[in-house]
Amino acid sequence: MTKSTPWQLDPALDLVLERVVDVPRDLVWEAWTTPEHIKVWFTPRPWRTTHCEIDLRPGGMFRTVMRGPDGEAFDNSGCYLEVVPKERLVWTDALLPGWRPIKSGAGFNFTAIIALEDLGRQTRYTATAMHSDESGRRQHEDMGFHSGWGAALDQLVEHMKTRA
Amino acid sequence: MTKSTPWQLDPALDLVLERVVDVPRDLVWEAWTTPEHIKVWFTPRPWRTTHCEIDLRPGGMFRTVMRGPDGEAFDNSGCYLEVVPKERLVWTDALLPGWRPIKSGAGFNFTAIIALEDLGRQTRYTATAMHSDESGRRQHEDMGFHSGWGAALDQLVEHMKTRA
Repeated sequence: MTKSTPWQLDPALDLVLERVVDVPRDLVWEAWTTPEHIKVWFTPRPWRTTHCEIDLRPGGMFRTVMRGPDGEAFDNSGCYLEVVPKERLVWTDALLPGWRPIKSGAGFNFTAIIALEDLGRQTRYTATAMHSDESGRRQHEDMGFHSGWGAALDQLVEHMKTRA
Repeated sequence: MTKSTPWQLDPALDLVLERVVDVPRDLVWEAWTTPEHIKVWFTPRPWRTTHCEIDLRPGGMFRTVMRGPDGEAFDNSGCYLEVVPKERLVWTDALLPGWRPIKSGAGFNFTAIIALEDLGRQTRYTATAMHSDESGRRQHEDMGFHSGWGAALDQLVEHMKTRA
């Protein structure tokens, strides 16, 4: 019997991007867990990821600094929650590295689940963002979740294909 | 080489209760991870824990309902973050079960780390509560963190000693 997962999707609160990509699962995992790769694909152009730190274990840091074409910078530090190699990567921006709760602010927070299914030369890629309420889901959607995460995934595929 | 832990204590933000208790480590772990035990010891009397649900895995639910002598009820649902049997139990109330971020509210949130060191018939017991800011630490301290968590630990020892 397969143990069910501890989370439950809620269409009113969650956003999902699911695609089959032409990159083997090992390389998708490598793309998500290696700072040098993240810097290449993670942020839709013309924005760039100028810095990335990864401490790949529960409680470990996932930090990215993104810069816009006019020099704007966003420094995001989150926390890995579950690391199942090549299968599932879970992190949140509701906790700082080391699981410390963030100060509650004006924006929304989310927990992301990247799930990978091995299809040989291809991978079924499912990215889920879970929010605390509908307003958070809507804000994230309006910010362009689907186009943004989709464009980043295109960049991942383009970059990792050169290594397959 | 021992890998360092992903969290770092900050005396300005964190509260720590450390004691050596006359209960073997296995039983302290059992006390923390079994609803029937939690209901006996978790809430300093005259308050009581009337309900407890435990899904002991990362992302799993840790829920307690506490009732006061005048019928007041507090229903708390948090989320386990790390489960290292007999050694370390980490959970937070900043995430709901399944790692979903909570709605930000007026109160403070914390992540708790219960660390157990085997001393034979005794156990070194270290409970840490990590907060996002000094105000959270102070609120938790003013609510009686040290006396409350200490009284609960006394109840744990009293209850589990009967089983040693």
